[in-house]
Amino acid sequence: MITPKPIYPSVWCRDHHGNKYTWEQSLDLIREFHGHTAPGLAVGVTMVSLAMDQMAADTLFDVICETQSCLPDAIQMLTPCTIGNGWLKIRDLGRFALVMYDKLTGHGVRVFIDTAKLARWKEFHHWFYKTKPKKEQNFDLLLEQIKGAGQSVLGMREIRVKDQYLVKQSKGAIATCPLCKEAYPLLQGNICMGCRNGNVSDPALERLAQQ
Amino acid sequence: MITPKPIYPSVWCRDHHGNKYTWEQSLDLIREFHGHTAPGLAVGVTMVSLAMDQMAADTLFDVICETQSCLPDAIQMLTPCTIGNGWLKIRDLGRFALVMYDKLTGHGVRVFIDTAKLARWKEFHHWFYKTKPKKEQNFDLLLEQIKGAGQSVLGMREIRVKDQYLVKQSKGAIATCPLCKEAYPLLQGNICMGCRNGNVSDPALERLAQQ
Repeated sequence: MITPKPIYPSVWCRDHHGNKYTWEQSLDLIREFHGHTAPGLAVGVTMVSLAMDQMAADTLFDVICETQSCLPDAIQMLTPCTIGNGWLKIRDLGRFALVMYDKLTGHGVRVFIDTAKLARWKEFHHWFYKTKPKKEQNFDLLLEQIKGAGQSVLGMREIRVKDQYLVKQSKGAIATCPLCKEAYPLLQGNICMGCRNGNVSDPALERLAQQ
Repeated sequence: MITPKPIYPSVWCRDHHGNKYTWEQSLDLIREFHGHTAPGLAVGVTMVSLAMDQMAADTLFDVICETQSCLPDAIQMLTPCTIGNGWLKIRDLGRFALVMYDKLTGHGVRVFIDTAKLARWKEFHHWFYKTKPKKEQNFDLLLEQIKGAGQSVLGMREIRVKDQYLVKQSKGAIATCPLCKEAYPLLQGNICMGCRNGNVSDPALERLAQQ
């Protein structure tokens, strides 16, 4: 018996414009933006797509990402929410979950990995819980299982975010720091936070470079 | 007298592949990724390009961005460094500056706005220091001045980042939180940080949604 192939390749994820991507196209998108085929993003793009499917078409939404690893890139690839425009907020709780909500009302959904549903996908489970060293993981099998599992391992619930996420906080007045001579938000105090709490670069070499 | 037009339009910025973009193409890129023509990104893409020009072609580099506003998107648009792959790190000091460095040696450059050089570009200065309410700012003039100023308002110095930025920190073992049943880094303690410090959504409505 021959199982007929679908005429159109099946959809793995979609972006906020409504463009749809097959599994292979999704992996291409991931490599282009993220630099390599991160398994977390292969899952992540389905999570973002599932969340967007719950939003009315004209909803202006924001996203809170509960991890800093991988998942923020799935959000930036498929939605208008980026870390630089502030519509993506990262609250790094170490959980592979995202909250997408109407930025006016705060109502939306939280999408997460349902760990109970994950148990039947052994390699996926090993990777997610890091119970096998990376060099012992079977990458092809992992991707195959992520593809096989699809959205079946996701959990979702309706939420309303706390009011603090609805208020846009202004940085207030801008001043010139008397030490580094750069512009900074005055509410940091009379010198900027970089000069007060330590710059990222080596001070000794910074002084050398200034000579 | 006729001023001849250049045969090739002048370059405003370039990405890590070496693709070059005119001013207009840069604004298109910005709108596509960031959602609107953010003046901070029009400046930001030149800052990123200047930094990349200091790196040897085969350097594996990371970036630290000293603000969360706008500039991280210029980095994500033009370099392989994203917030999700961890090669872009945000340390939100409120300064419009970026540090790009060899991820093995820590050597690199810091690019910032030289506020002394900004003084002659009045509208650019008003926008940067927020000394005019947004509705009184002349957006077209602002963009014109950003374009006119080009890289002349940028400052740069050689740096070496602190050792903490060279070490990749592992999240360690992963566990299942006994309260939310989701996976989390065990070093957070015996329940996950979300359950301990408060989830982003309204607990009352979360309970309702679970019924």
